[in-house]
Amino acid sequence: MAKITVKVPASTANLGPGFDVLGMALNLYNTVTLEECDQKGWMIDVKGEGDNLIPRDSSNLIARTILYLLDKTDYQMKGFKLCLDNKIPFQSGLGSSAGAIVGGLVAANALVGQPFSPDELLQMAVEIEGHPDNVAAALFGGVVIVAQNDNSLIYSRFVPQRGLKITAVIPDFCISTQQARSVLPKKVPLSDAVYNMGHLALLITALRDGDWELLGAALHDRLHQPYRCPLVPGLVDIMNVAREAGAYGVFLSGAGPTVIAFTPPRCDIGEVLADCFQSQGITARVLQLEPSITGASIVLEE
Amino acid sequence: MAKITVKVPASTANLGPGFDVLGMALNLYNTVTLEECDQKGWMIDVKGEGDNLIPRDSSNLIARTILYLLDKTDYQMKGFKLCLDNKIPFQSGLGSSAGAIVGGLVAANALVGQPFSPDELLQMAVEIEGHPDNVAAALFGGVVIVAQNDNSLIYSRFVPQRGLKITAVIPDFCISTQQARSVLPKKVPLSDAVYNMGHLALLITALRDGDWELLGAALHDRLHQPYRCPLVPGLVDIMNVAREAGAYGVFLSGAGPTVIAFTPPRCDIGEVLADCFQSQGITARVLQLEPSITGASIVLEE
Repeated sequence: MAKITVKVPASTANLGPGFDVLGMALNLYNTVTLEECDQKGWMIDVKGEGDNLIPRDSSNLIARTILYLLDKTDYQMKGFKLCLDNKIPFQSGLGSSAGAIVGGLVAANALVGQPFSPDELLQMAVEIEGHPDNVAAALFGGVVIVAQNDNSLIYSRFVPQRGLKITAVIPDFCISTQQARSVLPKKVPLSDAVYNMGHLALLITALRDGDWELLGAALHDRLHQPYRCPLVPGLVDIMNVAREAGAYGVFLSGAGPTVIAFTPPRCDIGEVLADCFQSQGITARVLQLEPSITGASIVLEE
Repeated sequence: MAKITVKVPASTANLGPGFDVLGMALNLYNTVTLEECDQKGWMIDVKGEGDNLIPRDSSNLIARTILYLLDKTDYQMKGFKLCLDNKIPFQSGLGSSAGAIVGGLVAANALVGQPFSPDELLQMAVEIEGHPDNVAAALFGGVVIVAQNDNSLIYSRFVPQRGLKITAVIPDFCISTQQARSVLPKKVPLSDAVYNMGHLALLITALRDGDWELLGAALHDRLHQPYRCPLVPGLVDIMNVAREAGAYGVFLSGAGPTVIAFTPPRCDIGEVLADCFQSQGITARVLQLEPSITGASIVLEE
């Protein structure tokens, strides 16, 4: 009976101006262990983040993702045991669902002898997740740029320069992606589109070249964060405080509510930012992170 | 009496998805020679492109630009002789006005001992031209990304990888920038903004890395060219023909009407594209170009 363990990174999407385009993998990992067993159905064991919320039956996102891939093959279904060890905060904007989907796809693909290419796995992940930025980062690691052409996804991956400290401040409430998308307008001023295009182009340059001064100038957005501020109490305050405290820039991670600050290595602003949430009556915790160069990978048995 | 000669490159802006953000200098140069003389007023001599259209009095764009800079200094005005040798097609979308403005600013700045930094010259050029992409490319050379922050311009320059052939097809009619802007909507679908953001980010990656396959996928736009098609008869046809004939991609240069194709080095499609204009009853000429690494530069006297 096959047993496969996959390690999959957290990710942050949008990074300010890169709405629905840019994702960065982070060095915080979930592991998904998929094991065939004789008994039909699913045995699902969860520890860590989200353990009190994650379903243990066939409605589990990873289980559904595994079946989604296996349905495309002639695999003869057995029963499965799934062990999830979660470090990625659940439904906080750090790519927990992207990690689940990518972890499930990579595990299932390995189970049936890797018939699907990374590009095909990405396509499946986007079909399930609905947007490409987190899943692309979780799958490939580094920073991934993704765009949708008429019928296909195009993407490019790069490794950001070293020297960036990433502080994630995670308040203890959830925003559904659906809710975060419902506040966005269908149409935006052309001038705001141009604003984000220019800033996104400079952001990519800054991350590739390690130009941290440029990074600070580039981390501004007019297409999603202004509309989402009402969903995250204190967000405008946090953004101002972070820059005053020495951050290059600060942004909503994905659809939030997690806020991420990019800072120089010796800059500790996590507690200051958590205090901003605290003053709104919201508890928040702080994680110190770095980019993850590696994406989802199969863990060899010892 | 001082005499200064400046060589300034042509430029192409937008490059498909990079509307109002991206400019590339091209290896086609105007020279501007500015010479002080005792007689007050302007003596202006023009040869080459636009010689039958360019004013010879103080309404001349270069003359006005020179005065714009000198007015910021305590320079004691003398008379000027201005000799213009123009290779950049006039008002065709290849940056002739940006070349005039940048040529005038660099010459005037040299005349008074270079009191203004390149950043200050860029700021002045944008104030005169109204948009930053062509002037930034003409000033700095290479490819320039520009974005407007609240009160300042931010920009970054890079040199594209070698190996790109640039075919410019220049039809014999003009579109004013004002006319080309008047057809653009004030608001655009958010999905189109995201589309251009993704493609622009990939375009920059492709040009930096010399990834020509990615370049072909990235050279699509939804924010300006679809609205400008009615201004350039045959444009949709030309775009299809160019890709079928082996171009990586094709786009309206700036606000048009010049069309530029990026192709592999041995691909000759200029005549095929000129024929597309011809079939609309429009005469067009073809220039084979390359990126210009150098921006505006002072020519030393021999």
